[in-house]
Amino acid sequence: MFRLPLLLQLRRVTTTSISYRFSHSLYPLTIREIYDKKPLNQSINLIGYLLNIRKLKTHYFLDLFDGSLTNNRKHLQVVASLDDHPDLPRLTHGCSINVQGKLVKSTHPKQEFEFVAENINLINSCDTSHYPFKPKSDETLLTLRQDEHLRLRSPLAQAIFRLRHQLTFSLYEYFHNHNFIQIQTPCLTKNDCEGGGETFRIQPYQSKVTQKEKEYFNTQVYLTVSGQLHLETAANGFGRVYTLNPTFRADKNFSRFHLAEFWMLEVEIAGLTKLDQLLDIYIHLLRTVATQIYNKCSEEFKYLANHNIQSKYIEQFLNQETYPRISYQQAVEHLRKSTDFHDFPDNGDFTRAHESYLCKTIMNNQAFFIINYPKKLKPFYMLTNDDNTTVANFDFIYPSIGELSGGSLREHRYEQLKLCLDELDITHDLQWYLDIRRFGGMPTGGFGLGIERFLMAITGIDNIRDVILFPRFYQNCNG
Amino acid sequence: MFRLPLLLQLRRVTTTSISYRFSHSLYPLTIREIYDKKPLNQSINLIGYLLNIRKLKTHYFLDLFDGSLTNNRKHLQVVASLDDHPDLPRLTHGCSINVQGKLVKSTHPKQEFEFVAENINLINSCDTSHYPFKPKSDETLLTLRQDEHLRLRSPLAQAIFRLRHQLTFSLYEYFHNHNFIQIQTPCLTKNDCEGGGETFRIQPYQSKVTQKEKEYFNTQVYLTVSGQLHLETAANGFGRVYTLNPTFRADKNFSRFHLAEFWMLEVEIAGLTKLDQLLDIYIHLLRTVATQIYNKCSEEFKYLANHNIQSKYIEQFLNQETYPRISYQQAVEHLRKSTDFHDFPDNGDFTRAHESYLCKTIMNNQAFFIINYPKKLKPFYMLTNDDNTTVANFDFIYPSIGELSGGSLREHRYEQLKLCLDELDITHDLQWYLDIRRFGGMPTGGFGLGIERFLMAITGIDNIRDVILFPRFYQNCNG
Repeated sequence: MFRLPLLLQLRRVTTTSISYRFSHSLYPLTIREIYDKKPLNQSINLIGYLLNIRKLKTHYFLDLFDGSLTNNRKHLQVVASLDDHPDLPRLTHGCSINVQGKLVKSTHPKQEFEFVAENINLINSCDTSHYPFKPKSDETLLTLRQDEHLRLRSPLAQAIFRLRHQLTFSLYEYFHNHNFIQIQTPCLTKNDCEGGGETFRIQPYQSKVTQKEKEYFNTQVYLTVSGQLHLETAANGFGRVYTLNPTFRADKNFSRFHLAEFWMLEVEIAGLTKLDQLLDIYIHLLRTVATQIYNKCSEEFKYLANHNIQSKYIEQFLNQETYPRISYQQAVEHLRKSTDFHDFPDNGDFTRAHESYLCKTIMNNQAFFIINYPKKLKPFYMLTNDDNTTVANFDFIYPSIGELSGGSLREHRYEQLKLCLDELDITHDLQWYLDIRRFGGMPTGGFGLGIERFLMAITGIDNIRDVILFPRFYQNCNG
Repeated sequence: MFRLPLLLQLRRVTTTSISYRFSHSLYPLTIREIYDKKPLNQSINLIGYLLNIRKLKTHYFLDLFDGSLTNNRKHLQVVASLDDHPDLPRLTHGCSINVQGKLVKSTHPKQEFEFVAENINLINSCDTSHYPFKPKSDETLLTLRQDEHLRLRSPLAQAIFRLRHQLTFSLYEYFHNHNFIQIQTPCLTKNDCEGGGETFRIQPYQSKVTQKEKEYFNTQVYLTVSGQLHLETAANGFGRVYTLNPTFRADKNFSRFHLAEFWMLEVEIAGLTKLDQLLDIYIHLLRTVATQIYNKCSEEFKYLANHNIQSKYIEQFLNQETYPRISYQQAVEHLRKSTDFHDFPDNGDFTRAHESYLCKTIMNNQAFFIINYPKKLKPFYMLTNDDNTTVANFDFIYPSIGELSGGSLREHRYEQLKLCLDELDITHDLQWYLDIRRFGGMPTGGFGLGIERFLMAITGIDNIRDVILFPRFYQNCNG
């Protein structure tokens, strides 16, 4: 349907013409509340979209949607008779309406109740010729990705982003219940942290004139690639801390695993002196949170499964208490026994292909830890083991994802840390970090977990761009 | 005390020498758990800092601190006899130790129990000649600000950042309980949103070479000044959404209210058609959350009060259900009756001085709303009122802070919004935003609340740099 000229549209709603509904309700009433409270035979106002319209003799059946319902009962059926509403034929799917009416017991055997409209106002019509969503046809993740600003109107995207909400909320709860303090580590930092990574620099921009970068901060400033070093200062205050912040990488990578802006959970715990204990905590966190999401969002998981989106590995997270822990050296030996990787070099770094081979062939598609990497492969802040050649770190390799997390105990010993920083010639830049250990400094350990990859792991969604609302990646920043 | 050469330090702890404590405890044991569980006469290992050391005859009394306790019982008293620990005199305040021992009933009338050390290992000594914290002397906010990377070791900063943690957690809970979905709106955006504001642009930086800005994203990209426009797309999916994200402003402003990076709560609610209802929701949120923080963090508030940090206005948040609502025009009339501002111009914008005058003189130091500003003063996205000259917006003015929040109903009517965008010549850039209303589009409304300013409001802390761990502002980005 083409957009009607303004004056021809039916009773367009202005600010004042929609009455304040349910005088004792603080928030505008939602369809969810209608289902929960079943306020029969009271005059009710609702605002929402039309998912679909059907005509049967003199009656119109409108599927009203306002995003408040989880997926198994995603709309409210509104019945309107043509006699009372001569403008009904002008409504289309996708338009927004204000409907005033009453909830009544349904005479239909399959339905508990229905909403009988007494008055309907069109709020905004819908340019249906360009609207990406069709009535009664389900979208795919691929088509939704084309219209990221509209995709939350689709039940499929709603299921995913409800899961994302529950994931972050379950994390907040887990940490609060375990006496962690949430820290907002800075996005803007002088420190490009892990060294090798590609970063973004920032530049003040004022009234259409780009200023010299240094003019604002008096120093070069980057977007953070990790809040870990800042978080360690906080772990030395509170003992248990975490951060759940945006993180930035300027990798020129189009892969389905990479984003330029993603959300990372980082956890830091004082008093940790055994790597095994860190791994136990990591698995406890993952299992607790995955179980909670699975229980709270069973409808969303069902909805995704009905659309052939399902992780083969979610059972692991829910049921498995421990995962194999192999050393870097053992992993190398496994690789060298294979025909493909028999010439794997000493102190070589693992690529996705290596991790995938180990996971599939050696671990039988089970998640596992690789621990104790060579010191040379890893950043300065990891604790050197007693052998003086490896560090007390882990990577957690997850089937279909690859590296889901990395973590380590930290080099908390003042002299050892100072030596490392001196060798890299970064002692001056990181004096604040060294100070933690110059003035006492507890042993700490921690890990990072990309929220988007964790969502992929538990849902089976295979493109990271489907689990963040406005994905930013190489050559792409819409809106 | 000068740092001892490595070999002279007492039994320095290595990774393997600290035993895994409490075999059934997932996390390292904390002093808080000692207080809560009182595990008398069991062998226990603890890791922490020394706040203070006292010697009495043959005994040392060590105040052990690990950040786990709230403020009224901030350490554990450890008793060690000199005979058993000949190296005890080398411990100083600020050093970190591992202490193994037992909790026993105290014979001292003022004390329920004490921790008797059986073995003590120094982890890191403390360069006390440069350590900013002295034993038994309280720090001020000003001195803490000099050492932001160390300040969380101070009970004063701990109280503030525990309050900050409780604030964000209470917000998460409030929204979850009211069926909101949390959205992570992007930090990187093509859109400089409110137009006039100073923003940061970003630039990929790789292997020490600055690249041309457009090379990475194929477009100019800014750090967001507000997630609101993106959040509106989500409100049109879920109905009730919020974001709690970092936000960036390149203002060259040294004031005690300004940061270049701060955390902003933004809330967007569909179905809202009355400004009064938005204001009711706003106050409900503030009161609910302030009450919860006040109840959960009574020890922290007491601690701050003992250090003369106290808000005169916190009672308002806890007890007052409604606040005066005056229109912009009424505010102007009040100003023009004063001697200082009798020549206030038509459609003039309010400065801090105007807001302060209104708050003190007209409102008797009470928080209040100013609503319905002239359309000319406000951004395109605010809903035009029926008078066609004002918008349905509010500013919430709080004593001692000024503008704590701003919000509005949004211009949800497709034709009106398109006209506004066309006039500003930004229709092409914001087609995605206009699309929300081109395809239906519910009426929505919302507001923003700077987390740091809200913390200032409820604590009485008067410098914003004291309530964010690593403050970034004009000419300042440490660490």
